[in-house]
Amino acid sequence: MNAPAKEMQLCIDACLRCYQSCLGMAMNHCLEAGGPHVAPPHFRLMMACAEICRTAAHFMLCNVPHHRHVCADCAAICRQCADSCDGLDGMDQCAADCRSCADACERMAA
Amino acid sequence: MNAPAKEMQLCIDACLRCYQSCLGMAMNHCLEAGGPHVAPPHFRLMMACAEICRTAAHFMLCNVPHHRHVCADCAAICRQCADSCDGLDGMDQCAADCRSCADACERMAA
Amino acid sequence: MNAPAKEMQLCIDACLRCYQSCLGMAMNHCLEAGGPHVAPPHFRLMMACAEICRTAAHFMLCNVPHHRHVCADCAAICRQCADSCDGLDGMDQCAADCRSCADACERMAA
Amino acid sequence: MNAPAKEMQLCIDACLRCYQSCLGMAMNHCLEAGGPHVAPPHFRLMMACAEICRTAAHFMLCNVPHHRHVCADCAAICRQCADSCDGLDGMDQCAADCRSCADACERMAA
Repeated sequence: MNAPAKEMQLCIDACLRCYQSCLGMAMNHCLEAGGPHVAPPHFRLMMACAEICRTAAHFMLCNVPHHRHVCADCAAICRQCADSCDGLDGMDQCAADCRSCADACERMAA
Repeated sequence: MNAPAKEMQLCIDACLRCYQSCLGMAMNHCLEAGGPHVAPPHFRLMMACAEICRTAAHFMLCNVPHHRHVCADCAAICRQCADSCDGLDGMDQCAADCRSCADACERMAA
Repeated sequence: MNAPAKEMQLCIDACLRCYQSCLGMAMNHCLEAGGPHVAPPHFRLMMACAEICRTAAHFMLCNVPHHRHVCADCAAICRQCADSCDGLDGMDQCAADCRSCADACERMAA
Repeated sequence: MNAPAKEMQLCIDACLRCYQSCLGMAMNHCLEAGGPHVAPPHFRLMMACAEICRTAAHFMLCNVPHHRHVCADCAAICRQCADSCDGLDGMDQCAADCRSCADACERMAA
């Protein structure tokens, strides 16, 4: 009764999973790989994606109707981040987590 | 050169000012006043407003073009929060900070 | 290789679980129950616990040695929050999540 | 009466100033300069410093006594980050903001 509805909980889980992938990969794999992995547009997108995922989860937990708009933003950034990961070595799991999060956020935003 | 442009810095300042007002007032004035100050719709809006202001500032500092969408979201939530504050004792400064932030965010989103 | 070690991943999971419980219960169960559930010392502790759990997870993902100190802080706040939840209806799961997180954080801080 | 005491407000200001410097410099100057500016130990410290500054401000705004411990952590990380900035071109203002924040946090932690 006080827990989020099932669909929303799945979206919170996807957001927190994507947050962990983006932040963890940026701070470890990308910084250690260097080169295109730390190109400003890619790296900034990784950090922005981590942040908006964290915020989207926060809004769903706060139970405010405006979460739909934040989820729509989150989905758009996750898709951009996944595309940016596609061209780089070792980022397949991160790209997959971004796309799963985008799918879940699009369902919440609908 | 590495500092945000002047208009953007003003918006970051407005976001961090509004973040402080919403979180500080919620955790102090609203909790201590009780009654309508802790009605769920008002209190949740205060917390959501604090969070989106923090995130909008973060996006501007990260220098990602998507900050426009987050600023648009932030402006909408700030206006709702200001309206919710209008009906309650002692919330005038918080409402004013929300409206200043909404104005600055709308300029960034334009 | 780029994923956190197993013990650290368990602690990140416990922190993000406790973050969700504290924020979700505060914004839903506590605000709706009112009375002692929104007493300032309890409610502030819920919000502080949610925040430090989020930050402890962030530090572990960032792979900075200082995470030990943040985990020690997190454990201390989680224990206080669990004790505060003990006296209140419907907070058993939140108290359990706080104690699980405190245990995991103490192992990381050791 | 609901505003933070003067000394605390100065510390919140210093934390949010340092947060902006660390995040803004990391995402702009460091990523664009490359080389030692994106060496993992330096860059992680910049991100960890931004995060703990944000959290210390949050704790002070939440009015929980435990803020002293978070301020002590924040001061320690700010000093490390300042030292790391000292060896790098263009980071003087960031190092100065870290040291101002460390000073303010040490006063709160005392």
